[in-house]
Amino acid sequence: MITAQAVLYSQHGEPKDVLFTQKFEIDDENLTPNQVVVKTLASPVNPSDINQIQGVYPSKPEKTTAFGTSEPAAPCGNEGLFEVLKVGDNVKGLEAGDWVIPANVNFGTWRTHALGEEQDFIQLPNPTQSKANGKPQGLSLNQGATISVNPMTAYLMLTHYVKLNPGKDWFIQNGGNSAVGKYASQIGKLLNFNSISVIRDRPNLEEVVEELKELGATQVITEEQNNSKEFGPTIKGWIKESGGEAKLALNCVGGKSSTGIARKLNNNGLMLTYGGMSFQPVTIPTSLHIFKNFTSAGFWVTELLKHNRELKLKTLNQIIEWYESGELKDAKSTETRFDGSKELHELYKDGVANSKSGKQLITY
Amino acid sequence: MITAQAVLYSQHGEPKDVLFTQKFEIDDENLTPNQVVVKTLASPVNPSDINQIQGVYPSKPEKTTAFGTSEPAAPCGNEGLFEVLKVGDNVKGLEAGDWVIPANVNFGTWRTHALGEEQDFIQLPNPTQSKANGKPQGLSLNQGATISVNPMTAYLMLTHYVKLNPGKDWFIQNGGNSAVGKYASQIGKLLNFNSISVIRDRPNLEEVVEELKELGATQVITEEQNNSKEFGPTIKGWIKESGGEAKLALNCVGGKSSTGIARKLNNNGLMLTYGGMSFQPVTIPTSLHIFKNFTSAGFWVTELLKHNRELKLKTLNQIIEWYESGELKDAKSTETRFDGSKELHELYKDGVANSKSGKQLITY
Repeated sequence: MITAQAVLYSQHGEPKDVLFTQKFEIDDENLTPNQVVVKTLASPVNPSDINQIQGVYPSKPEKTTAFGTSEPAAPCGNEGLFEVLKVGDNVKGLEAGDWVIPANVNFGTWRTHALGEEQDFIQLPNPTQSKANGKPQGLSLNQGATISVNPMTAYLMLTHYVKLNPGKDWFIQNGGNSAVGKYASQIGKLLNFNSISVIRDRPNLEEVVEELKELGATQVITEEQNNSKEFGPTIKGWIKESGGEAKLALNCVGGKSSTGIARKLNNNGLMLTYGGMSFQPVTIPTSLHIFKNFTSAGFWVTELLKHNRELKLKTLNQIIEWYESGELKDAKSTETRFDGSKELHELYKDGVANSKSGKQLITY
Repeated sequence: MITAQAVLYSQHGEPKDVLFTQKFEIDDENLTPNQVVVKTLASPVNPSDINQIQGVYPSKPEKTTAFGTSEPAAPCGNEGLFEVLKVGDNVKGLEAGDWVIPANVNFGTWRTHALGEEQDFIQLPNPTQSKANGKPQGLSLNQGATISVNPMTAYLMLTHYVKLNPGKDWFIQNGGNSAVGKYASQIGKLLNFNSISVIRDRPNLEEVVEELKELGATQVITEEQNNSKEFGPTIKGWIKESGGEAKLALNCVGGKSSTGIARKLNNNGLMLTYGGMSFQPVTIPTSLHIFKNFTSAGFWVTELLKHNRELKLKTLNQIIEWYESGELKDAKSTETRFDGSKELHELYKDGVANSKSGKQLITY
């Protein structure tokens, strides 16, 4: 019998007010034939996890009394890495020691253990398996626990909508220094796409520009340059020289930053919006729509992959391959280990509070 | 020998400052085998004609000295109805008396006569031909001269992008009282689509609402209702009751009006922008893009049909059929006849000046 713990909420609200830790038991001695018991290795605090708790996110877990609460309560967390502890007699695809991630969102990953069935999980190679397969390196906890959202978002936005011609065509993105932005720069380079990353001006601008170019951004410009008419011809020059076109814009900011990147596209361009950090709406000059046949669409990895397991697996496999070869670097997280000195929900509350200054990962 | 006249400009500027009338000769006694001589029956003043003269429209005619000017000059006008006067020996598809419109934009329709070849024109039935074909009625001058832009725009936006299920699905449009808006309401009804037309509040609101409903709008609402959260459930109720979805929005206003109609769409909705009467950009809440998979695109009839003659002919034939059956009413124009009492360019200058108060048509 395992005494497990999960972070739950029964009422929506600010995480600091509504999270609590619930203990519950998993009877690992009497598994039904299809059951799988896993223990958590790590799970991050994502913005969407926070929005789910606040009740302002359109996808959310069902409330349940299955954790033994008197009131129905919902588990927190959508991304996480687990290790298989034990499997039922009919489970053929997984065994103890395997690394898995949830197959679907709303699984509840802010917990110590979970009981599920084989189809609830997708296997990742654990470091021993990567080594046995002759790979240069295995996945880190952070790579495994954060593989489902940011790198998948970057890869799918770059490949699923517009065909960029390698060595020629360009994409432009704002939020170039964000986690997704860094993945997009790297993946762009791996796929041989030219890219322009827009970032905010800052005291150590040159340093960040160099870092992003090292990751793979072809050019890095500031929001001021993005909004400047005078700077436009410089960008047109880069694109012309490449013999390609700027076909795709990735927007996680909105407002005039979205207008700026939209204007850089050639005719028939597409902008995908996957975030709105400025809290300003996406703003598109009428003439871009009419005379440049510009299209503005949305991207939400959850919805895209909900009914497309094949695409999810294909994308995961590509990311895994790049992690194992060392060609793709993960966005670093601040890691905090659950060692029992604080209650589990207190760790995640701290994680939420600290998430403004960088991605937080709780390890077990 | 025909002494013809055309309205030209050699410098971009306000029409009142730059238009002039140029006389030129058409040698109709010595046609080459493929030539066609036509005389103009009517041509309208469209906003895009004005923008071309101002130099702010992306599609424009080449300047030429073919009209006999010392400086290169460009002909004005894109839509118009002509009657064939005479054809060369090899021309098989046209004969004297046939009605034709230009096959392409930038033809120059503000003129008394033109010389072209068969492929420069598309034939419409003249009233005698419609009668001979047993049609209830022939096309009027206004219908023929304005068939290429507004009714085609409305029909193509309603049919070329999204499949609306007849009897169930909805489109919503702002500018419901505009020429395109009225065509869209009528064509929507002919295709059995439900529709919501948004119009500005006005003293004779009830009268206009009744007129638009008579034309075919299922519902007519004001911009205030379009922007009102409180009114949202009423619209949702209409849509729910129909058993369909709101799948398409047509935007010719921009700004908060575009936000309002975008918000009314169900998941996976498309908004087509074909105008920007408010001079405000298209404004889209980030959450619509991400969580409702909303897409905002542009529509420009010129570009869509430039390389798609088949679609142009198919669309034209549908509009002609509805005009001949009397099922589709044209947007009325104020008609002014060129009787020689004023120079030709003066008539069009007056037409430009008066176009704010309604569509202007010059007849010959």
